Amino acid sequence: MYQFEKMNKKLLGVQVEEELMNFILGEPVEVGRKIPNEFELAEKFGVGRSTIREAVKGLVTKGILEVRRGAGTYVVSTCTSEEDPLGLARLGDRYKLALELLDVRMMLEPEIAAMACGHITQEEKARLEQLCNEVEQLYRSGINHASKDVEFHTHIAKCSGNRVVEILIPVINTAVLTFVNLTQRQLMKETLETHRAITDSIKKGDSVGAKAAMVMHLNYNRQKILQIYENHMKDNENQESSKNI
Amino acid sequence: MYQFEKMNKKLLGVQVEEELMNFILGEPVEVGRKIPNEFELAEKFGVGRSTIREAVKGLVTKGILEVRRGAGTYVVSTCTSEEDPLGLARLGDRYKLALELLDVRMMLEPEIAAMACGHITQEEKARLEQLCNEVEQLYRSGINHASKDVEFHTHIAKCSGNRVVEILIPVINTAVLTFVNLTQRQLMKETLETHRAITDSIKKGDSVGAKAAMVMHLNYNRQKILQIYENHMKDNENQESSKNI
Repeated sequence: MYQFEKMNKKLLGVQVEEELMNFILGEPVEVGRKIPNEFELAEKFGVGRSTIREAVKGLVTKGILEVRRGAGTYVVSTCTSEEDPLGLARLGDRYKLALELLDVRMMLEPEIAAMACGHITQEEKARLEQLCNEVEQLYRSGINHASKDVEFHTHIAKCSGNRVVEILIPVINTAVLTFVNLTQRQLMKETLETHRAITDSIKKGDSVGAKAAMVMHLNYNRQKILQIYENHMKDNENQESSKNI
Repeated sequence: MYQFEKMNKKLLGVQVEEELMNFILGEPVEVGRKIPNEFELAEKFGVGRSTIREAVKGLVTKGILEVRRGAGTYVVSTCTSEEDPLGLARLGDRYKLALELLDVRMMLEPEIAAMACGHITQEEKARLEQLCNEVEQLYRSGINHASKDVEFHTHIAKCSGNRVVEILIPVINTAVLTFVNLTQRQLMKETLETHRAITDSIKKGDSVGAKAAMVMHLNYNRQKILQIYENHMKDNENQESSKNI
């Protein structure tokens, strides 16, 4: 006979952690904002403060919360483990992380675009064109096209016939979106043109063209993120030097 | 006030699932073997059969168990979600999956080896050489070198300065080991020579050499997995045609 009862205390912490996550997503408490303090949360959920501490600790480990000493507990990400199975949110330095993610996309996606040329079916070609059109329509209407964009890249991964990249691409691409609030509207022309070039090349089975178009597409994004990162570093330096005056 | 009690039934299933996983790992019940039937498990864990069914269902979803109708429930993987955060074990057709994983390594690791040349520190160079030596010693002594091999490749990823590949490489490389019982002893000469070439090139900062050595290294593995996959497909065909006689 196993004894499950002894686990109940641990499990209560897990349940409160789940409820706390729901609270953050439901309110919502946005990234950068503070959650209520321990007393308030203990009252809210009708549990002891030690349970709240355990729940907070759980969300800290998952990269959702950050405890800043003397200042309170802050939401640093709302990316749940389903969307972030690799726990990328744990890694600090979000701008650098976005650049690292782009470097990984640079290794994978041009090859994937080339592979798709040899594997894509007629139905998949029609779907590719449709997704390319949908992203363009959203973009031109000023509606957020981010998740449709991830769908476009994921579809290309699917067309490559490699199930591992089909899993990886949405994980990596969604992470980029989470870490850098890239005002991609600045890249509208470049995005639409390179998306179209990728689509046309894959449809024609032109693997060199598909690969090259994907390199161009990713590099526009990478340059933009690099620029944001470098500005961020300069701001930090300026803050440091003004402190020292 | 939140009501946590109502969740207890669900949680009991989760707890039994955990215990069942511990049982599989502890016995151990190896991949390809059958677990005891529902009656036996219900008695063993002191719970009802519906709870056992729930626990089994949980492990099926996680790619650990497979229910074969009329034959029983089999262990198909022992890779837990911590080791397999992308849920690769879910995907069927293990030999094909191993090949797909190798294709992803082919996209990532040569680039990573080249990047490592520009980022590696003196201490990291010493550690790289040490890991290369350790893999060689284990290999020559006939001791299982698999996890040390993953460590060698993960260290190179770490030396590249990209934290995303540092997370990805052990996930992908461990998965390859789980899915194909590659009798790598056949590749001893090739593995040791290419590991050494990768190490020496990175230490010298020769990025083209490091990249090329990594391509060679991975391709020896890929060719072997391809051979196993093709033999497996032939066996299946033969079985099918002997059924039709």
